[in-house]
Amino acid sequence: MMNNGAQALIRTLVGAGVDTCFTNPGTSEIHVVAALDSVPEMRAILTLFEGVATGAADGYARMADAPAATLLHLGPGLGNGLANLHNARRARVPVVNIVGDHATYHTRYDTPLQSDIETTARNVSTWVRTSRSTKELARDAVDAIAAATGPPGQVATLIVPADVSWQNGAKPAAPPPAAASPAASSETIEAVAKTMQGSRRTGMLLGGKALREPGLRAAARIASVTGTKLLAERNVARLERGAGLPAVERLAYWPELVSKQLDGLEHLILAGTTAPYSSFAYEGKDSSLVPAGCAVHELSPPTSDVVTSLERLVEALDAEDATATLQTAAAPPRPEGPLTAEKVCQAVGATLPEWAILSDEALTSALTLPVNTAGSPRHDWLTLTGGAIGQGLPVAVGAAIACPDRPVIALQADGSALYTIQSLWTMAREQLDVTVVIFNNHSYAILNAEFARIGVEKAGPRARAQLELGNPNIDFVALGAGLGVSSRRVDTAEQLTGALEQAIADPGPHLIEAVIPAV
Amino acid sequence: MMNNGAQALIRTLVGAGVDTCFTNPGTSEIHVVAALDSVPEMRAILTLFEGVATGAADGYARMADAPAATLLHLGPGLGNGLANLHNARRARVPVVNIVGDHATYHTRYDTPLQSDIETTARNVSTWVRTSRSTKELARDAVDAIAAATGPPGQVATLIVPADVSWQNGAKPAAPPPAAASPAASSETIEAVAKTMQGSRRTGMLLGGKALREPGLRAAARIASVTGTKLLAERNVARLERGAGLPAVERLAYWPELVSKQLDGLEHLILAGTTAPYSSFAYEGKDSSLVPAGCAVHELSPPTSDVVTSLERLVEALDAEDATATLQTAAAPPRPEGPLTAEKVCQAVGATLPEWAILSDEALTSALTLPVNTAGSPRHDWLTLTGGAIGQGLPVAVGAAIACPDRPVIALQADGSALYTIQSLWTMAREQLDVTVVIFNNHSYAILNAEFARIGVEKAGPRARAQLELGNPNIDFVALGAGLGVSSRRVDTAEQLTGALEQAIADPGPHLIEAVIPAV
Repeated sequence: MMNNGAQALIRTLVGAGVDTCFTNPGTSEIHVVAALDSVPEMRAILTLFEGVATGAADGYARMADAPAATLLHLGPGLGNGLANLHNARRARVPVVNIVGDHATYHTRYDTPLQSDIETTARNVSTWVRTSRSTKELARDAVDAIAAATGPPGQVATLIVPADVSWQNGAKPAAPPPAAASPAASSETIEAVAKTMQGSRRTGMLLGGKALREPGLRAAARIASVTGTKLLAERNVARLERGAGLPAVERLAYWPELVSKQLDGLEHLILAGTTAPYSSFAYEGKDSSLVPAGCAVHELSPPTSDVVTSLERLVEALDAEDATATLQTAAAPPRPEGPLTAEKVCQAVGATLPEWAILSDEALTSALTLPVNTAGSPRHDWLTLTGGAIGQGLPVAVGAAIACPDRPVIALQADGSALYTIQSLWTMAREQLDVTVVIFNNHSYAILNAEFARIGVEKAGPRARAQLELGNPNIDFVALGAGLGVSSRRVDTAEQLTGALEQAIADPGPHLIEAVIPAV
Repeated sequence: MMNNGAQALIRTLVGAGVDTCFTNPGTSEIHVVAALDSVPEMRAILTLFEGVATGAADGYARMADAPAATLLHLGPGLGNGLANLHNARRARVPVVNIVGDHATYHTRYDTPLQSDIETTARNVSTWVRTSRSTKELARDAVDAIAAATGPPGQVATLIVPADVSWQNGAKPAAPPPAAASPAASSETIEAVAKTMQGSRRTGMLLGGKALREPGLRAAARIASVTGTKLLAERNVARLERGAGLPAVERLAYWPELVSKQLDGLEHLILAGTTAPYSSFAYEGKDSSLVPAGCAVHELSPPTSDVVTSLERLVEALDAEDATATLQTAAAPPRPEGPLTAEKVCQAVGATLPEWAILSDEALTSALTLPVNTAGSPRHDWLTLTGGAIGQGLPVAVGAAIACPDRPVIALQADGSALYTIQSLWTMAREQLDVTVVIFNNHSYAILNAEFARIGVEKAGPRARAQLELGNPNIDFVALGAGLGVSSRRVDTAEQLTGALEQAIADPGPHLIEAVIPAV
C-alpha cells in the first residue's frame, strides 16, 4: 500500500501499539493531521497548549505501561512542552515525542519559526533524530519507539520535516522487538541478602516498577523476614497502594523530615531507584539525605528488571512463604466544619472509590494525604516526578485516557494549576472521568515555607507580594466553567464530601474549588 | 556597601536602568525575591506562567527601547518561557533573561529539577553565561546587559546558582557603556541612490527602527523623489503609524499576496531587515518571496543604525526638502449588525484613541485591521514576530508597564489566547490599562486555511476535529472573570463599539469577547 510519509508514520505507530497521540499541531504538521482520517486506529486528542499534550503522554504511559505519541509544532511548540517532558524523563516513562519541522529545503532561510529543535529536545530526550527522508521515516519511528520503551522508559524525540511528511512512496515498518532488561546478578543478590541478614537497621528504597503490586509483595516478604524498613522514592511516578497491599512510606520533601525517616539506618538498599538527595540545596546543609555512617547498596538500578531482582532476593532469603504485612482497610472520619488542607485530604480518604487513580500535585496542601488514604480501597498514586509544576492536570488527562473505566481524582494546588489550566478543556472535550480538586489557599505556599527555612523570618512586603496569589483572587469555578467543566466552590468539609461523592458518581469531568486558609 | 549576590545583582540592574523584572520564581530564586525589599527601585511584576514573563519582557522592550529582566525557575521554567523568548529574539529586542539554578555544589547530584539550562537557553539567546561566584555576579550582569542591548537587541541569559545569590561579599557594578552601531558606508549609500535613480520599479523593505517616525519620514522623502515603493517587513516588532505619519504597507502572510505586493519590482532595497521568505514551505512553491529577476540590495542590516543610513540616503538623493506623503486622518464608518471579523477591525478603527498601542495577535481575523486603522490617530502596532503563538497578551502586559499613560488594545485570536491566558491575571493585579478583544471563531482558523492550500479540499472529520475549538466552546468572559478582569461578550457591531468606548474610557483592564462566525 502506497503511503505518504505522514500516513506511514501513523501506521507504523499504530502497528507498534502506539495508538494514542496528544496533539497541538500547526502548519508544519498539517499533513500528519490530514492523514488521521486514513488511519482511524490512531486516536488523536487535541490540547490547547503543548504542556498539556506532553504531560498527558506522561500520565498515559504511567498507567498504560506503553508510550503515547505527541504532535508538537516546531521548536517553540516543543519549548512549551519541555517542562512536562522533563517530568516524564524523571518519571522514566516512555514517550514518542513527535515534533514537526519546516521542509528540509526551507530551514536554511531562517524564517520566523526556524530554530534548532534538536538542541531544544536534547535536555529531555535520550534519543533525538530528525528524519531525513520519506523512505526512512517509518524506520525512524520504529527506532524512536524502541528508544522510548527503554529500559527504563524515556523520551524519544522524532523531528519530522514537512516535506518528509507530505512526499509519497513510504511504507509502514514493523514494530521493534520487545526490550529486555536484566535482573540483578546472583552475586549482588547474595551480597544484599547477607547485608539484610546481618543488620536489623536496614532500609530499602523502592522505585519504578518496584512500586507495583508484584514488587511490593516481594519487598514485603523480604521485610517480613529481615525487618528491613520499606520506603518509596520521593518522586513516585506510580505507586499501587491501599487496603490489601503492602504499605510503603514515601520519602518526605523536606530534608529534616527525611532525616527522621532514615534515622538510625546502617544500610540503605536501592531497588529501582537512585540514592536520595534533597530537591534543593540549603545554606550550610548537606545535599545528601543518607545519614552519616549509613552504607548504600544497589540491588537493582532503574534500567534493570527490579521486580525479578526482588523476587530472586525473596528466594535467596527463603522468604517465599513469609507473611507479608498488608494494609488493613480503614477510612478517616468524614471531616466537619470549615475547610482546611488536612480536611480536604480526609474528605478524599473518606470518599475514595475503588481503583481510583490519584494525580497528586497539591504539594504543601497534601502533606496528610498519604496517611488519610493509606487504608482506602486500592488505588494508584501519581506524583510530581521532576519538580516542574503544572504536571498534575495533564497527567490526569493521560491517565483517564489510558484507563477509561477508572475514576481519576486530581488533587491540585492553586499555583501549580495555573501552568496548564488548559487541561480542563481537553477533559471536557473527551468527557474524561476526572474530578479535579483545587486546594485554593491564594498563595505559592511552598515558597512561604522556603522563606522561613532560609531564615527570612519577616519577608518584606515586596518579597511577600511575589508569593501571594490573591489580589485578585483566582476564581477556579469561573475558569472551569470557561473551559467547559462543571465546577463548584466549597468551603466546608460537609460540602466537599458531598461534592466529591456527587462528582465521582457522575461520569465526566468535574472541578471542585476547595477554599482553604492562606498559609 | 556589603551585599549578598542577589542584592548586588538587583542593584547592578537598577544602576543600568533595568528597573523592571517580570517574575515567576521558585525556591532557587528565593534569595533574589528576598532582596527585592532592599532595592525598592526594582519593580517586580509577578506572572502565573513563565511565557507571560518572557512575552511581557518583549513587549516592554518594544515600547521602552530598553531591556526588562525576567526571573525564571531553572530549566523547566526557562522551557515554559522559551516560545516568547523565541519571539523576542525575532523582534530583535533586548531582554536580560535571568534563570535561577541549583547551588553550584548541588548540580552534581542530578536532583529532580536538574537540567542543562545553558543548552535550553542557547536557541533563543546569543549570550549565555552561568555565574560562577558571588564576586563575579555583578560583572556578569553588566555583561548580560551589554549583550542584550546589542545592536540589535537580543536575549542574554544569565544563569544564577542559588549559592551565588545567597553568599555575601558582592558589590554592585557600573553600567556598561552605550553600544554603538555603524550606519551604512558612503559607498553603499551611493550605490543604493544610483539604483533608485536608475529604476522606477524599486521597492524598499523597512524593518526594525526604520519603522519609527524618524526612519519613516526619511524613507518617505526618499520615496517622494525616487518613486520607491515602501514596504514594512512581515514580522513587525513595532510600527509607528496613523494620521500624520508616512504610511507603509506591511508584507502579507500568504505568499500569493506577497507576490502581488512585490510584483514588477526590479530592485528591492533592505533597510533594517533581511530578504523575505514565506513563513512555511508549500509543496512545489519557492520559499523566496522575491520575484524572479528582482535584484536585492542591502542598505543597512539589522545590526546597523538604519535611521542614520536612511537619513544619509536622503542627503545623497538631495531629498532633504522633499515633501513626504503623509497619511490623512480617516476612520471607517461605525459598523452595524451581526459581528464579523472585518466589523471587529472596523470597530477598532472607528474607536481607536490617540497614542494607543495595538498588540495584534488576531492572525487570520485581523486581515483588514491595517486598512481600517491606517488613518486612525497615531498609534503603535506590535505584531507576532517569531510565529510562536501566545505572544499578544504578554506583549500587551509589557507594553502597558512600559507606557502607563497610553491605552493598550490587545487584539487576540481565540486559539492563540489560550497559550498564555494567565496574562489576564497580571493585567488585573497591576491594574494595567489594557483592553483585550478576543476574536472568538471557535477554531484554529489559520489551519483551516492551510488545509485548503495543501489541496485537502475535504478534510475528514478526524482531521477537522483537530482544528475546531468548539465542543466545548470556550467562554472567555468566564476566563476573564476567573482571572480578575472585567469581561463581557458582544455579538453585534453596535455592542462592540460601545464596549470598546467604555473600556477605553475606564482605566484598568477589560476583556471583550467578540463572537464571530466560524470559518
